[in-house]
Amino acid sequence: MTQIQHSLADAARERQQQLTKPAGSLGRLEELAIWFAARLPSPLPSRLNPKLAIFAADHGVAAEGVSAFPAEVTAQMVINFMNGGAAINVLARQHQISLSVIDVGVATEYPMPAQSNARLFRTPIAKGTANLRHSPAMSAADCTKAWQVGYGAAIEAAKAGKNLLIGGEMGIANTTAAAALICALTGYGPEEIVGRGTGIDTLAHELKIQVVKDALARASAAGAHSAMDWLREVGGFEIAALAGFYAGAAEAGVPVLLDGFITTAAALVAVKDNPAVGDWLLASHVSQEQGHKLALDALQLQAMLDLGLRLGEASGAALCVPLLQSALALHAEMATFAEAGVAAAKMV
Amino acid sequence: MTQIQHSLADAARERQQQLTKPAGSLGRLEELAIWFAARLPSPLPSRLNPKLAIFAADHGVAAEGVSAFPAEVTAQMVINFMNGGAAINVLARQHQISLSVIDVGVATEYPMPAQSNARLFRTPIAKGTANLRHSPAMSAADCTKAWQVGYGAAIEAAKAGKNLLIGGEMGIANTTAAAALICALTGYGPEEIVGRGTGIDTLAHELKIQVVKDALARASAAGAHSAMDWLREVGGFEIAALAGFYAGAAEAGVPVLLDGFITTAAALVAVKDNPAVGDWLLASHVSQEQGHKLALDALQLQAMLDLGLRLGEASGAALCVPLLQSALALHAEMATFAEAGVAAAKMV
Repeated sequence: MTQIQHSLADAARERQQQLTKPAGSLGRLEELAIWFAARLPSPLPSRLNPKLAIFAADHGVAAEGVSAFPAEVTAQMVINFMNGGAAINVLARQHQISLSVIDVGVATEYPMPAQSNARLFRTPIAKGTANLRHSPAMSAADCTKAWQVGYGAAIEAAKAGKNLLIGGEMGIANTTAAAALICALTGYGPEEIVGRGTGIDTLAHELKIQVVKDALARASAAGAHSAMDWLREVGGFEIAALAGFYAGAAEAGVPVLLDGFITTAAALVAVKDNPAVGDWLLASHVSQEQGHKLALDALQLQAMLDLGLRLGEASGAALCVPLLQSALALHAEMATFAEAGVAAAKMV
Repeated sequence: MTQIQHSLADAARERQQQLTKPAGSLGRLEELAIWFAARLPSPLPSRLNPKLAIFAADHGVAAEGVSAFPAEVTAQMVINFMNGGAAINVLARQHQISLSVIDVGVATEYPMPAQSNARLFRTPIAKGTANLRHSPAMSAADCTKAWQVGYGAAIEAAKAGKNLLIGGEMGIANTTAAAALICALTGYGPEEIVGRGTGIDTLAHELKIQVVKDALARASAAGAHSAMDWLREVGGFEIAALAGFYAGAAEAGVPVLLDGFITTAAALVAVKDNPAVGDWLLASHVSQEQGHKLALDALQLQAMLDLGLRLGEASGAALCVPLLQSALALHAEMATFAEAGVAAAKMV
């Protein structure tokens, strides 16, 4: 943080002591107000103007039978987003969050949807990734392309005045790719990180663990070392785009609110590639997906919500937006002890 | 629950399986939608129309030095509520919750506030309670009066179409009364339940524990046995009013959202007095106040938020309102697999 940012955080911390409440009694909300004051940057940050982008892509590894849903569901859900019927549409409407869907590699053909409950950008890099169990998920060139789509989306949102960036994802089998990435970048084993995704049974879960083990062994043997190597080897187009999105947000100086397991894997890539990105990240919720908590710990992030969610689409992040708005509204709008003529604590 | 309520819960549970998301992936939000469907009662509950009432009163036990703030702050905060400068004002504005302040026993004289950011009802039973360390906090007649104020407020809100009732409180030293009640009604000892309230130091905390021990011993010796006995002996006017508020909500069939330590003590009284009240209670957050989690456990309630709050005023409950609204909006507005043309899970 810069000197100005430190000063703004100090001023916000001092203001929190003056507001008509016992010092510290708003807990995490006080920390959030101070965090945003340093980053927006403003002593009294105004209402957040969030931008939510869902990156959608398919995964060759779906052919291994690692998901409860058929791969066609990725395209079908893109249409559902456009028609306004998905969970994230409901939450975006409720919390006034503008919504974009960015196709960076959906495999199934789909028509241009008739309705437009979100802005749709069709910029597929390819028809899904290759099967990461047996070969690199994507080429270095395609990985860079996907990253740049996300990076560009963040820069554009920052230019448009958005001051909170939320990435979401849709991609059948993407918890397999995310689990492999988290293992590679944290050192945890597949047994600790691989979860049940959309709801697979024990047999499919054991298979999924084996698929991740095979992918890690294959990529290791191929010399994968850097975060970008691993992203290319075992990632996905939407994960690469998300990592670029977070890198772009940090470059533009805009706070990021993470969602669940897949977005956290993308954040790990972005932070391993450039540790400065970490300073712009907030965790929203800890998902039911095994390994998410460990991945957040690796980023030294603490979730605000723990509601047993495991949906993706940035749904957990969207649910956190009113908490963030509340933290800033309390900071800006509460009266101080002096303003209200309320006696301060007689002991401290 | 009635047969109709069971049917509505079953229908809501069935609908959750049909919505375009992996079954169970919305976690607690699915349970909440089912809970409300059975109680509002409706297969597709509409938006909640919440009513928030803050009950304010003073406590004779403040004279023992158990709070970090002087007793005058109760009246000063009532004025702050009316002037719109308190935390709950900010949250009520943000989440469109109508706000009332009900003075059931504020000790300090205060003028009629010039502004009206809340509806103020001045119905004090007395100028605060007696000092519960040395004598019953209130007479049986006054306890009933306070209970009836809360009960009446709930019945009136139900008649006005409110379908979620939230009680809040303001009363310097009321964590002492609440801790004594929780000890008496759960069997936990003061060391487990008594916390630091608005932020007292270790010496004052030790004193507070002793005050609660003395109060429990005194009331026990006086033959306190029922929940109503304990309420009169070691409670407070705002706690009695809250207990009546919850009893009235249950009688009218309106869901209740609890706040923190003090409201949970009041809920324990209402449930011990009439176990049927328990079926209408939802926990919002678990506060930083020691003993709150144990009190929620005694009511078999699980909090949604854990943000280190310890402010009262129903602030934690107000922060939960958008989560509840989200749960109902998702339930009512998401497309089903059939409506969206999305393939359901191939394995379950």
